[in-house]
Amino acid sequence: MALIVQKFGGTSVGDVERIKNVAKKVIATKRAGNDVVVVVSAMSGTTDYLINLGKQVNPNPSKREMDMLVSTGEQVTIALLSMAIHYFGEDAISYNALQIGIKTTSDFTKAKILGINTEKIVESLKQNKIVVVAGFQGVDEEGNITTLGRGGSDTTAVALAAALKADRCDIYTDVDGVYTADPRIVKEAKRLDYITYDEMLELASMGAKVLHDRSVIFAMKYNVPLRVVSTFVENKGTLVVKEYKNMEDLVITGISQKLDETRVNIAGIPDRPGVAALIFKKLAEKNINVNMIVQSVGKDSKSQISFTVMTNDLNDTKEVMEEVKEELNAESISYDSDIAIVSVVGIGMKVHAGVASRVFDILAKANINIEMISTSEIKISVVIRKERASEAVKLLHKEFFEK
Amino acid sequence: MALIVQKFGGTSVGDVERIKNVAKKVIATKRAGNDVVVVVSAMSGTTDYLINLGKQVNPNPSKREMDMLVSTGEQVTIALLSMAIHYFGEDAISYNALQIGIKTTSDFTKAKILGINTEKIVESLKQNKIVVVAGFQGVDEEGNITTLGRGGSDTTAVALAAALKADRCDIYTDVDGVYTADPRIVKEAKRLDYITYDEMLELASMGAKVLHDRSVIFAMKYNVPLRVVSTFVENKGTLVVKEYKNMEDLVITGISQKLDETRVNIAGIPDRPGVAALIFKKLAEKNINVNMIVQSVGKDSKSQISFTVMTNDLNDTKEVMEEVKEELNAESISYDSDIAIVSVVGIGMKVHAGVASRVFDILAKANINIEMISTSEIKISVVIRKERASEAVKLLHKEFFEK
Repeated sequence: MALIVQKFGGTSVGDVERIKNVAKKVIATKRAGNDVVVVVSAMSGTTDYLINLGKQVNPNPSKREMDMLVSTGEQVTIALLSMAIHYFGEDAISYNALQIGIKTTSDFTKAKILGINTEKIVESLKQNKIVVVAGFQGVDEEGNITTLGRGGSDTTAVALAAALKADRCDIYTDVDGVYTADPRIVKEAKRLDYITYDEMLELASMGAKVLHDRSVIFAMKYNVPLRVVSTFVENKGTLVVKEYKNMEDLVITGISQKLDETRVNIAGIPDRPGVAALIFKKLAEKNINVNMIVQSVGKDSKSQISFTVMTNDLNDTKEVMEEVKEELNAESISYDSDIAIVSVVGIGMKVHAGVASRVFDILAKANINIEMISTSEIKISVVIRKERASEAVKLLHKEFFEK
Repeated sequence: MALIVQKFGGTSVGDVERIKNVAKKVIATKRAGNDVVVVVSAMSGTTDYLINLGKQVNPNPSKREMDMLVSTGEQVTIALLSMAIHYFGEDAISYNALQIGIKTTSDFTKAKILGINTEKIVESLKQNKIVVVAGFQGVDEEGNITTLGRGGSDTTAVALAAALKADRCDIYTDVDGVYTADPRIVKEAKRLDYITYDEMLELASMGAKVLHDRSVIFAMKYNVPLRVVSTFVENKGTLVVKEYKNMEDLVITGISQKLDETRVNIAGIPDRPGVAALIFKKLAEKNINVNMIVQSVGKDSKSQISFTVMTNDLNDTKEVMEEVKEELNAESISYDSDIAIVSVVGIGMKVHAGVASRVFDILAKANINIEMISTSEIKISVVIRKERASEAVKLLHKEFFEK
């Protein structure tokens, strides 16, 4: 008997009929002889509705109270899904994060999971119940309700799978797997049967919205096999694993674009040790995630640093950078939100040389200017103008997948 | 500095503007130099919406899951009210029942409060915060979310006031106090400045919907002064207290009608000790509240028992009574939901003789048939046909208040 964690997102539980549909899927897995723990998000639209309601009351709402507010969304879904499972004849019990103890940091609206108390879940599974858990939410040391940020239900599911040593974690969503590129941009994009954690992680953090990147980190760390599968289409989806056969045969596995980042440029800063550390420590303290970083030195021994942050974090970033500017006596700071980050990702890069030059060549031929470059062992990312992003993705897909 | 608990019902927090209005009232009390704990219900319509959603998923939903579902309603309100208080410049913090530990029995959908852990609240008050608590909900020994049944937020407020030894508990509602009769029925009804717990209790349990009867019991037990006051109209409302000056001057203080009860009649049962005990023990086990009880013996030494239950509990009652019928070999059972209970209530009855005969006389003159009578030291209740109820209330009001 296997233990399977299944996660259903907001679209999958978007109305009463869909909740019943999810109940049937969960029951099918249970009746196939498995123990099942289900993690659900709020019904689609609910979180936005609640955030909007909060902002009507207070345009600058307390983050603690915002988490108190939006966490009700998942609680509604767990109750409804349990009722639906009962309706179809299996036993089920719902738990919110306070009840199980999904312990997180106190970073309201983007808390991190520290640990999960599995006692209640294990006990309920022993009683032959399907356990339905609220995704996206947690509780800090003081007993305050927290949320994990957008996509946090994926993280809940994987963290639960890790804590319970589950055999597999199935992420049900409205796409039927991981594709070589976003099929809405590239018609020729193909679904992958397998992808490694490393590749998925690079793709997720670079804008492929199939999985929340923190969920992939969790899965990798605890070696939880992760399956991305559609709620609406019957196929086996994509399995995210540590390694698979012939995984280096493909030069690259996927191409992604990210449109919600802003480039920050701070120029005329002293070229001495500790400057970068100062900037990025201050940003980290505000919980602002920095994506790409490039530093260069000019001739007057002044240097400049460019980096990208989520456009969502721009206001917080500006606050930090004003302080930094004063402290370093910098010449100027600029912000540019009209950028895109396009990335090609693949384990195959390790063995197939020349991928970077092929990328640069393709973009050059199309007269697409590269403004920043960042590479890892299995990824090449470039910053280009936002309006050229789709074109770049199409051209790169043609180069690497359609030959 | 006084500690005041304020409770606002669903209509008072029915939309964003009303929530802001409540925030202003709360802040005014705080700025007058008081510590304030606020208890709120779900926004009006929310609980019914959620119950309906649940029934769409499962026409016979699990009560545990129903409580999980509907308890989200109050959690939304506490977050929004805290945000509104912040907006107007005071500090506030919200707590749901799990967080504070409002301990209840496990009777889902109608749990009873066993105790409240005041530690978090006291700590937050010390930090000069307004504390906003979710009404209506609790947590049982196992950590399951429970709800207290309709009107339960009043009980939460009074129980909190008792646990915190508050100086006063203000129940804000859409009426501006306790009246001598329902002003929608009797135009001449007058607002009372004072009423005793005993009187309020008899009126509440007899259908005057101003206060939930359990909240009055709590207030009486812990001697919490309770003020019924309007959210929308400025006046001092009605103060519910143990005793007040000249409280026996009035013959009666109020007249109520109750239209949501069903009379149950079981006939042809053995006239021996223990029969009534058997019936009412079984009903109590199912948590069915019995209101009036009348027993009579026929000539063939068979007896019959009539009693009234909430029409809401009729299905559960029928189940119990079928068992009882078999066990006692009773001749027949009948149910009648077309009844009303009309009650006159007043401490003054203790010193003013002849109230009962005046009641019976008035009804007889109007040719209104009395089908059951039940009296206490301070109350006379009669069961009559439902369609004559308003008329009876008007006639009795004229007799006792308009002379």
